[in-house]
Amino acid sequence: MNTVALGANPANARDPLSLVFAALADPTRRAMLTRLRRGPATVSELGEPFDMTGPAVSKHLRVLERAGLVARGRVAQSRPATLKAEPMKQVAEWAEEFREFWGQRYDRLDDYLNVMADDDPKDHA
Amino acid sequence: MNTVALGANPANARDPLSLVFAALADPTRRAMLTRLRRGPATVSELGEPFDMTGPAVSKHLRVLERAGLVARGRVAQSRPATLKAEPMKQVAEWAEEFREFWGQRYDRLDDYLNVMADDDPKDHA
Repeated sequence: MNTVALGANPANARDPLSLVFAALADPTRRAMLTRLRRGPATVSELGEPFDMTGPAVSKHLRVLERAGLVARGRVAQSRPATLKAEPMKQVAEWAEEFREFWGQRYDRLDDYLNVMADDDPKDHA
Repeated sequence: MNTVALGANPANARDPLSLVFAALADPTRRAMLTRLRRGPATVSELGEPFDMTGPAVSKHLRVLERAGLVARGRVAQSRPATLKAEPMKQVAEWAEEFREFWGQRYDRLDDYLNVMADDDPKDHA
């Protein structure tokens, strides 16, 4: 248990799922993935809707590639990017594990605080 | 379109969904959320399985709170944390939009590169 990464900075987290979540924590990268649902795209095609320079697009693509969300072509000079959506399945499955709690908000905390108020405080130290 | 946040660093992303993804990009924080499925927990209860100090737990909780994934009790001194799973629904829904691509990997890139090879290069500049 002590080997788990404790860093609060997502950039330090190295496990595959953390890389995926960190890659998705940016609206431009999410928009790029949405664009790639329509099919592979070159760097210039990806940068156009955001007025982004080639290097800025490439930087985002490297983050997405490292997370396994994008693959780059090796043949053509333009190295088109294509969607690899497999990690998205893991994201969905992880979030789905919380489905039974989606509707709930503060009710359980209220219940818990009520129990605590009636209870011996030393049980909750 | 130019108003979209272009920073590559997830910590700079301020939109709600980016905050959620960034909060989930850490295995300890994900484990804390999984623990909270069993019910609210105090800082010391949350830190125990990871051998974490109170301040380290509190730091993670602040990230989760800011993302709307956790609420803290205001009554008791121990300020128990409780799960707020609503943002997880947004995560699942976002990932689900890619469902039709989950099984696919490189096939579409191969198709695309084959088309490019047969095609006039200036169409892909």
